[in-house]
Amino acid sequence: MIDPNDVYAYFLGPKAENYSVFKEMLGYMMDDYAEWRRGFHPEDPPVITAQDQQTKEFRAAMQDMRRNLVELAGLLQVTSVPWFSPRYLGHMTTETLMAANLGYMLALLYNQNNVAYEGSPGTTGLELEVGRQLAGMMGYSPDTAWGHLTSGGTVANYEGLWLARNLKSIPLALRHAAPQLVSGWTEWELWNLPTEVVLDLMDRAREAGLLDEVRQCSVRGQGIPAGGLGKVLVPQSKHYSWVKAMDLLGLGQQNLVQIPVRQNYRLDMDALDQTLEQLEAGRIPVLAVVAVAGSTEEGAVDPFHKLVELRTAWQKRGLSFWLHIDAAYGGYARSTFLDAEGRFMELEEMQETGQDMLPQAVPSGWPEPEVYRAYQAFPSADSITVDPHKLGYIPYPAGAFLARDRRVVQLISYFAAYVFKQAQESPQLLGSYILEGSKPGAAAAAVWIAHRLVPLNRTGYGRLIGSSIGGAQQFYRSLVERPIFAANDRQYESLTLTKPDLNIVVYAFNERGNTNLETMNRLNQRIYEHCFQSSGHLYRSEFLLSKTSLEEKEYGQTPAVFVSRFGIPRQEWERVGTVFVMRSCLVTPFLERETTFDAYWEDFRSSIERTLSQL
Amino acid sequence: MIDPNDVYAYFLGPKAENYSVFKEMLGYMMDDYAEWRRGFHPEDPPVITAQDQQTKEFRAAMQDMRRNLVELAGLLQVTSVPWFSPRYLGHMTTETLMAANLGYMLALLYNQNNVAYEGSPGTTGLELEVGRQLAGMMGYSPDTAWGHLTSGGTVANYEGLWLARNLKSIPLALRHAAPQLVSGWTEWELWNLPTEVVLDLMDRAREAGLLDEVRQCSVRGQGIPAGGLGKVLVPQSKHYSWVKAMDLLGLGQQNLVQIPVRQNYRLDMDALDQTLEQLEAGRIPVLAVVAVAGSTEEGAVDPFHKLVELRTAWQKRGLSFWLHIDAAYGGYARSTFLDAEGRFMELEEMQETGQDMLPQAVPSGWPEPEVYRAYQAFPSADSITVDPHKLGYIPYPAGAFLARDRRVVQLISYFAAYVFKQAQESPQLLGSYILEGSKPGAAAAAVWIAHRLVPLNRTGYGRLIGSSIGGAQQFYRSLVERPIFAANDRQYESLTLTKPDLNIVVYAFNERGNTNLETMNRLNQRIYEHCFQSSGHLYRSEFLLSKTSLEEKEYGQTPAVFVSRFGIPRQEWERVGTVFVMRSCLVTPFLERETTFDAYWEDFRSSIERTLSQL
Repeated sequence: MIDPNDVYAYFLGPKAENYSVFKEMLGYMMDDYAEWRRGFHPEDPPVITAQDQQTKEFRAAMQDMRRNLVELAGLLQVTSVPWFSPRYLGHMTTETLMAANLGYMLALLYNQNNVAYEGSPGTTGLELEVGRQLAGMMGYSPDTAWGHLTSGGTVANYEGLWLARNLKSIPLALRHAAPQLVSGWTEWELWNLPTEVVLDLMDRAREAGLLDEVRQCSVRGQGIPAGGLGKVLVPQSKHYSWVKAMDLLGLGQQNLVQIPVRQNYRLDMDALDQTLEQLEAGRIPVLAVVAVAGSTEEGAVDPFHKLVELRTAWQKRGLSFWLHIDAAYGGYARSTFLDAEGRFMELEEMQETGQDMLPQAVPSGWPEPEVYRAYQAFPSADSITVDPHKLGYIPYPAGAFLARDRRVVQLISYFAAYVFKQAQESPQLLGSYILEGSKPGAAAAAVWIAHRLVPLNRTGYGRLIGSSIGGAQQFYRSLVERPIFAANDRQYESLTLTKPDLNIVVYAFNERGNTNLETMNRLNQRIYEHCFQSSGHLYRSEFLLSKTSLEEKEYGQTPAVFVSRFGIPRQEWERVGTVFVMRSCLVTPFLERETTFDAYWEDFRSSIERTLSQL
Repeated sequence: MIDPNDVYAYFLGPKAENYSVFKEMLGYMMDDYAEWRRGFHPEDPPVITAQDQQTKEFRAAMQDMRRNLVELAGLLQVTSVPWFSPRYLGHMTTETLMAANLGYMLALLYNQNNVAYEGSPGTTGLELEVGRQLAGMMGYSPDTAWGHLTSGGTVANYEGLWLARNLKSIPLALRHAAPQLVSGWTEWELWNLPTEVVLDLMDRAREAGLLDEVRQCSVRGQGIPAGGLGKVLVPQSKHYSWVKAMDLLGLGQQNLVQIPVRQNYRLDMDALDQTLEQLEAGRIPVLAVVAVAGSTEEGAVDPFHKLVELRTAWQKRGLSFWLHIDAAYGGYARSTFLDAEGRFMELEEMQETGQDMLPQAVPSGWPEPEVYRAYQAFPSADSITVDPHKLGYIPYPAGAFLARDRRVVQLISYFAAYVFKQAQESPQLLGSYILEGSKPGAAAAAVWIAHRLVPLNRTGYGRLIGSSIGGAQQFYRSLVERPIFAANDRQYESLTLTKPDLNIVVYAFNERGNTNLETMNRLNQRIYEHCFQSSGHLYRSEFLLSKTSLEEKEYGQTPAVFVSRFGIPRQEWERVGTVFVMRSCLVTPFLERETTFDAYWEDFRSSIERTLSQL
C-alpha cells in the first residue's frame, strides 16, 4: 500500500500547511528572475536611478501602490470563494497544484506570448510538449496527433466544431476545385466520407497544388452553403457552449439536435440511433456527434465505445460524421486507467492492482465497466476537449484541444506576414493553427510543471483524481446509507440522482410526506441559499454547495423518475417541470482519508440539520 | 514640468531596480493569502499533518518539486525574450506594470473564475468595473455601454463581428416573426437599418414577447442564410484575425473586402467610398466596416472620423453598416487625449498643456490633427477592441471588448441552468453574454489594480504611453536625421516607412547604390537574423527587432513608393513584389529621457554598423 502522502505534498493545503516550502520556492524564483534582468547586458546602467527612487513623487507612487495592493488583498479575502477547503462542495474547482501556481507566477513575470515562436521561444515548446502529453493520455499517437492549450473548454469545443464543419464542406469543394479526385462519388457519398478519407484527399489536393483553391471553394472561403452543412448531435447533458457554438459558427441553433439521456444521465444510444435513421432517411447530413465525458451537471460519462461502434456500423450504411468528446471535465480521469508505462490497463488487472496502488482512491466497484470502456475508446475520437484547469488542478486559464490527426490544422490555418513568414508548416507558429491569438506562455509553463511532477497515469494524476473519486464515492455512500436528516421533529429524506461515474454527486432533500414538487424545490433552494450566501458571507459559510435545476425543456421526462422516488406524484412533475437539486463536485483531494472524511461528513450532516431547523 | 519619476515607479525596471519593493509587497500578499486560508473555519484541524510532512515520500515529493521548478526557472532564463530591456525594439511588448503583476500573482492563488458570479463574487465585479472604465476611456457612456475582458484582441474582434452579423440578420427575421414591427420597409431598407434602430426594434419585440422567436428566425437560429449577410470591409493593414473571423463565423473569406491604404498606411477613404458605391449599386449589403487604430505592422491610425462622416452620408442614401474599431493596439492611447476629468481635450489646448504635463512624452507635432480627430470620433463606433495586454502594460491574457449599447448582448446571450437560473438579466453572469466561458478572475484583478494606480487619462496612461511615444518619436527622428550607416567602406541608407502615428517605427536598410530589391531584402533579413537569434542566443543579442514583409498581395502597389525612395527602380518592385522591413514597437517607457535614449541610440547605431561589417 503506497502512502498517499505525496498527494498532500502537491498542494499548499487547506490550512496553508505547506506554506513554508511555497514561500521558500517563490523567494528563490523571484530572486532568480531579478538576476535574469540584471544579467542581460550587465554593462547597461540602471535606468531607474537611486536619485529617482528618492524623490517625493516616486515614494508617493510606491506608497500608493502598496495601499492599493493591500486594498485588493482585502477585497479578495472578503469576496473570494474558498475552493481550497474540504467544505467547498460546489463547482468543478478546488485548490490547484502548488507547483503549477509557482510555475505560473514565475512565467507570468517572463510574460511570453505563445501566439508565435518569436514571442515565446521557450514556452511555445512547453505548450506543444503538453499538447503531446495530453494527446498521449487520450491514447492518441503523440507523433501524429495535435494538441495545444486554449483559454478553456468552451473555446476548445468551438475549435472542434470549426474543424468538423470545415472538413464536412471539403468533399463538395473538391467536386468544384479538383473534380478528378472525387469522380465517381455521389453527392450523398461526398457528404459522408470518413475523416481520414477527407484528410487524404486534402493531401492529394495539396500535392496537386490545388489545396488553396479547394479551401476557397469550401465553407472557409464561401461561407455556410445554402442548405447548411447538416446536423450536430449532442446529449441533453451537453455544456451550453455547444449551443453558443452553433450560433458562433453560423450553423444555426436549429441544427443542434439534442439526444435524450437515460436515467444514469448518459447518452441514450437507442435514441441516437433512431435520430440517425431519421436523418439518413431524409438525406440530411450529420456534421458531428458529441459525447460527454463528465457532464457539467452530473459528471456522467457517455458510452463512447458504443458511439464508436455505432459510427462504424453507420459508415457501412454510408453515413459518417465527426466524433468529438467533450471531456473538459472528465478528460484527465483517463490517467486513472493508465499504468506507469501509459498502457491502458485491463479492467480486472486495474481492479486488482488498484488494491495496491490506491487504497481508497479507486474504491471497489469503480469504475463501472461502461465507464471503463468509454475511456478505453477515446482514441477513436476525431477530437477531444480537456481542461487542465478542471481535473488537471491547474489555475485558470488552461483548456486544451486535441485532435487525432494533426493534418486537420490545414482546415483552419492562416498566415500573417508579421507573425511568421518562413517555415509556414512549422507547428511552432501557433496563432495560425488555432482559434485564439495572443495567449499566455505562463499557462503552458503551469501545465508543463504539473505534468512533470504528476505523471499522466496511475502513479500521478490517476492517484490524485482517484483521491477525489474516493472522497466523492464516500460522500455518495454516506448519503445513501444515512439518507434521513432530522430537524424540529420533522424528517427530511435525501436522495442521490445517480451513482456518480466520476466525482460529482447530485442530490436533493424533501420533507418526508411532502408530495408537492414546488415545496420540495423551495426547500432545496433555501438550503442552497443558506449554504452559498451570495451576499458576501462566503467566508462564514459552513459548507458551500452548488445547485442546478433539471428542467423538462432540457432533459425531457428523464428527471421525472428522480422526482417520483421522493414519493411525489408524476402529475407534479408534469405541472412543475423542473426539479432543483444540489450539485457537489468533490474535486478536493482532501476527503479521501476516512478520518478526514468522517469529520467533515458529520459536520455536513449537522450543518444541514441546523439549516433545516432554521428554515 | 512634472517629473516623470512616477512612471519609473510603475515598473520593476530593466535592472530590477525596484525589486526590493516588489519583493516586500509580494511577501506581504502571500502571507496575507496564507492567513486567509487558515482563517476559514479556524476550528478545522490541518488536513496535511506534521506527521505527513515528515515522511520520506513527502519529503521526496517536495524535493522533486524544488528540482523541477529550478529547471523551469533555468529554462525560462535561457529561452525567454527579454522584453523588459530598452534593447528590445521588436513586438508590441515591453515590461508590464509591477502592480499588475503583483495583483495577478495574488489573484492567481484565489483562482476565481469569472464565467459566473458564483465562481467569482469579487473578481466579476472587478471585470465589469474595468469594462466600464475602458468604455469611458473610449468616450462611451459607462452606464449604457458594455465592456468585458477577453483572452485577447483576436477573440474581441470575433465577438464584434459576431454581434454585427447577428444584428444584420434581425430585421429580416422580424419580417417573419414580428412583421407588424417592420411593415412598410422594403427588403433593402431592412438590410440597412442603423444599429440603434435594430436594437429599438428588438426591445419592441421583447415587449411583445416575440424576441425569442425573432432570434430563432435570425442567423442565430437558422444559420447563415442562402446568399449570405453581406460584405465585411477592412483596411489592407488589418490584423489577420479578421480573416480567421470570416471563416470562424461562417461568413466566408470571399466576403471580406480589403480596402487599400494610402502612403501613410491609413485607410484610403476614397477607395472605401468607391467600394460602397459598387456594393450599393449591386444591392449587396455591407455587414460591417472595420477601422484600425494602431495597425499591427505600422501602428497606423485610420481616419475614423471620416468613416463616421461617410457612414452618416451613406445612411442618408439608404446604406448602413456596423462600425468596429480594432484598437487592440492603439486603444489605450486615447488616454493621452483626456484630461484629469476625462474630458477629450481640444487639440490646441492639448498641445499647450502638453508643454507642462509631458515635457517629452508628447513631442511637439504629436498628435497629427488627423490622428487626434480619429480618436475624437471613437464614441461613434458600435464596438471597439482594446487590449490591456498591449498598451495597457498588463501581463497576458487581457484583451477587452467594448460596445456602445449594452443591449447588443441580447444578440448572443445564452443561459444554462447550472450557471445561472435566476436574474437572467444580471450582467454579472458573464458566460452567457460573451464568446468565452471560463476565464481568470486574476486578469480582471490585474487590470483593475493597474487602472487604480494609472488613471485612464493624461495623468496616468496618457503620461505612460506618452513616454513610449516620446521614445519612438526620438527614434524616428534619429533615423531620419542620421540615415547613413557605414561599414567596411560601404555606406548603407536607412529610411522609415512613415512618420509614426503612435510608437511603431518601420524602416529598412539598403546599401547605397544598390538597385536590386532582392539584394536589399536579403540585407535586411540578415540584419534581422543577426539581431534576433531564434536559435537561442537571445540573451546575448545586442538589440532585438521584429520584422515583417510588405507584400503586393496584401498591400497592392502601396509599398512601391517606399522601395523607390531607396533608388530602386519600379520594375524591381513589380518583379519581386515584397519588401522586407524592420519593425520596432517602442512600447518601452524607458527611452523617453534624452540621456537614456542617446546612450541606447549610439549603441544601436554601432550595433547595426558592426552587424553590417560582419555580413
